[in-house]
Amino acid sequence: MSSPSDTLIIEHLAQYVSDHKKGTIEEVLDKRTRHLTIVLEDTFQSQNASAVFRTAECFGIQDIHLIENLSKYALNKRVLRGANKWLTIKKHAQKEKDNSSECLQSLKASGYKILATMPSANLTIQEVDVSQKIAVVMGNELHGLSDTAIEMADCKVTIPMFGFTESLNLSVSAAICLHELTNKLKESSVDWHLSAEERKQLRLEWYRKLVRNAEMIERKFLESIT
Amino acid sequence: MSSPSDTLIIEHLAQYVSDHKKGTIEEVLDKRTRHLTIVLEDTFQSQNASAVFRTAECFGIQDIHLIENLSKYALNKRVLRGANKWLTIKKHAQKEKDNSSECLQSLKASGYKILATMPSANLTIQEVDVSQKIAVVMGNELHGLSDTAIEMADCKVTIPMFGFTESLNLSVSAAICLHELTNKLKESSVDWHLSAEERKQLRLEWYRKLVRNAEMIERKFLESIT
Repeated sequence: MSSPSDTLIIEHLAQYVSDHKKGTIEEVLDKRTRHLTIVLEDTFQSQNASAVFRTAECFGIQDIHLIENLSKYALNKRVLRGANKWLTIKKHAQKEKDNSSECLQSLKASGYKILATMPSANLTIQEVDVSQKIAVVMGNELHGLSDTAIEMADCKVTIPMFGFTESLNLSVSAAICLHELTNKLKESSVDWHLSAEERKQLRLEWYRKLVRNAEMIERKFLESIT
Repeated sequence: MSSPSDTLIIEHLAQYVSDHKKGTIEEVLDKRTRHLTIVLEDTFQSQNASAVFRTAECFGIQDIHLIENLSKYALNKRVLRGANKWLTIKKHAQKEKDNSSECLQSLKASGYKILATMPSANLTIQEVDVSQKIAVVMGNELHGLSDTAIEMADCKVTIPMFGFTESLNLSVSAAICLHELTNKLKESSVDWHLSAEERKQLRLEWYRKLVRNAEMIERKFLESIT
């Protein structure tokens, strides 16, 4: 929850943000969603994680979950294009814990349906019902999804393929899933928008990133009003 | 055109191919298309070209065109997963020639509509009419499409984006275009299948790749029947 002072801080920082940038932020907030999120389980190739971040940001998805049981994820700046700056990235990387279980359990508790992407599934990504909130889980490049993720999934989906290769690159699979699901959401009557409170929090976060010396400006401002 | 002896060679090589593999080949041929092709203009990052090859193969697209004016394309085996083995790859890389013009002209002459993918386009990839054969042209990672490609395009398309980043990775853009267009084709009444003659030629080509010492076996067989 935001405090009453958040509104004041936003108003104060707004003076340091150009109208053009403010306009862009409001446009992005209008199209932002938490109805859909993506979970990367032990992704180890930096260009894959980075391409997924970039795709998610381009399609208006705010939250990314990173599970690190076996592999630490790494980022590739060239592929990333600064997309991480605008995302909420939640890392699940506690030592000696089953981070997959913890992450997926907390998503379920927040109302997300867990969608495991795997080649052997019968349901296609086009057939997924988007009325409930969805967390798409992508497995590791070599071993696919963990047993935990497969067991905890509410449904298993695949992207239909017709060639000899029968396996898409991880960042390509993720992009096709996110593109398909965001399109479906936008054509549906589902309310996938952020709440006013969520928008306010992100606006504050993004202003803080855009304004040079935001921390100092904010501290001085708070001192002046107390 | 195939010669009468092609039929005999196919029948002869078939003895060395397992029924399982023959079944897979016929399944793949059933879903293969030349109605859609992709053109990579001066792609220089090896994982991009390789991911596009793999995606195209997975989605049943047979032909890939590579234009090399500025950059030589390179492949990345890890990303490629052997997809190139099953594709028809046409390189347009003559020195001191405008390879973009030559490639796109020859595609137009073969009945293809040239689709230039660019962020500033008004038409979305979802709105593309797939009744005519389509060649999707992807520009270079840094400079986008050449002026020639933009001028020669029959239509310009974009993938709608809603974030700050506003630009997808090349292999991700290509995958979304190919996924969208192949799905649209399959839902349409367009006859996108290969002709019997094209199937025969590919069957022969793929048998030759699958059978160990195919060249020697074929030579001995031809000697035995003449």
